Amino acid sequence: MPTSLPETLARVRRVVDDRLPGLLADPASGPDAAAVGDALPGAAREALLSPGKRVRPGLVFLVGDLFGAPEQRLLDPACAVEMIHAASLALDDLPSMDDATTRRGRPALHAVHGEDLAILAAVTLIVRAFGVLADAGLSALRPATALDLVSRLADATGLLGLASGQSLDLRTPEAAASFDRLETIHARKTGALFVASAEFGAVLGGARERELAAVRSYARNVGLAFQIVDDLLERQDPARTGKHAKRAPAPTFARHVGEEGARRLVTELTAHAVEALEPFGARGALLREFASLLGARTA
Amino acid sequence: MPTSLPETLARVRRVVDDRLPGLLADPASGPDAAAVGDALPGAAREALLSPGKRVRPGLVFLVGDLFGAPEQRLLDPACAVEMIHAASLALDDLPSMDDATTRRGRPALHAVHGEDLAILAAVTLIVRAFGVLADAGLSALRPATALDLVSRLADATGLLGLASGQSLDLRTPEAAASFDRLETIHARKTGALFVASAEFGAVLGGARERELAAVRSYARNVGLAFQIVDDLLERQDPARTGKHAKRAPAPTFARHVGEEGARRLVTELTAHAVEALEPFGARGALLREFASLLGARTA
Repeated sequence: MPTSLPETLARVRRVVDDRLPGLLADPASGPDAAAVGDALPGAAREALLSPGKRVRPGLVFLVGDLFGAPEQRLLDPACAVEMIHAASLALDDLPSMDDATTRRGRPALHAVHGEDLAILAAVTLIVRAFGVLADAGLSALRPATALDLVSRLADATGLLGLASGQSLDLRTPEAAASFDRLETIHARKTGALFVASAEFGAVLGGARERELAAVRSYARNVGLAFQIVDDLLERQDPARTGKHAKRAPAPTFARHVGEEGARRLVTELTAHAVEALEPFGARGALLREFASLLGARTA
Repeated sequence: MPTSLPETLARVRRVVDDRLPGLLADPASGPDAAAVGDALPGAAREALLSPGKRVRPGLVFLVGDLFGAPEQRLLDPACAVEMIHAASLALDDLPSMDDATTRRGRPALHAVHGEDLAILAAVTLIVRAFGVLADAGLSALRPATALDLVSRLADATGLLGLASGQSLDLRTPEAAASFDRLETIHARKTGALFVASAEFGAVLGGARERELAAVRSYARNVGLAFQIVDDLLERQDPARTGKHAKRAPAPTFARHVGEEGARRLVTELTAHAVEALEPFGARGALLREFASLLGARTA
């Protein structure tokens, strides 16, 4: 493990960015001439390769390192998580969802390629994520381990994860946005993939059940804090996030308990995350710093 | 193996229809009170449980039986294939794709629940399909076998399968719809999931590589014939398929080579499918009958 957190995260971003294109090769660049002109591979690559912080792969690596997982085993699973995340962004921006015309300061995927291709690109990335895990299980990982990751990623993306979180986010009227409901929305929409990322690192490092529970608790709290900070940043300066959405703002903690309350909540969640690391003592230093880093992103 | 093909298919339909609801349980019906009111589980169940012929599960079982796979091992993988198929129908009907207002004579999913939920229901079904395979690999199947199925299903759904087929189908202008291009479209949009279904049965029955290649060839031809017949049926009587689509008809073989030519093509493809079964002798009887049945669905 190299010295500092920023160095580690920069390195993870680099190896992930180097690896992603090869995991989503365009079949038409091979012998598959009959499909030349299919715009889908390009759209899917654009969705995946647009510049990002690679926060979730960072979490996979940090937790994996905590348990001594060889980094070479972490890479493809971390890329699979990023594929799901990229798909979720392409879907969020659709006219029937957040109706965003820009993302990270660029035109949204559907604005460039049409809604149909944006949806199909998201589907492509989602199924490829599972394909990448399967390939890893037929080479670098034990099959049972890879299958465990498939199961966790499916859970994080379905009715207890991303899809449900997005559905609740879109369909919860302001009046029904209780504290508990907001927590459920964020836990699913953001927390679930953070938890899966931490689980990936732990499983690949051979963590025991109790250790797994600890990093789950850490990731859940960090994920919630991350989402609240995102909402605060977007509220303070919509241009900052590079996303322009036409939909009325979704229910957020910031609207529910005010900016001060939301900031207190981030502090509390970050403290809970750090507490969960107690069993790991000094070995948890980088994860503690990671939690503080994500929580301190206030404008 | 029971006596006749119709009996076998009816039995498969029954066991699949009995099994599907339990594989897509609504989490809110459990202790998950905070998500009460999420419309997504209902929309996903509606997409999956609306009456269907369960042709692909039928193929999984027929090929599985050919290789002596215990039927209990075939059931959940067959249900996973049906989940992908149901997701593809929900996506096909979207306003940005075929823009269909009805499906199987009922309002299309997006017409009832909105585009957002139709898309999220499709995502839910897709990821659940992989979750079902993972669960099977952690119980009834060997992990390596389940992982092999994950890999095949991912391939059948992504850039060499359904997603690409749909993209090419939507974006190929009539003038570019050569015979080869049409074959690629149908091979991906329909053939790939037929091939995966046959592979599932073969892998679960422990087929050897050469046997696997034979049933792949069978399924590819049957899948193409199936799609051409579907197009013929829709052309002859749009009301018959229960689907009303606003989009201009997609490029089809029937438009390319005429109805007579398309029917000859179905006959040829069915013959190719039957030829591929030659190594299996009398054991291939039900699959031969299945190919004829699908090819003979002309109005």
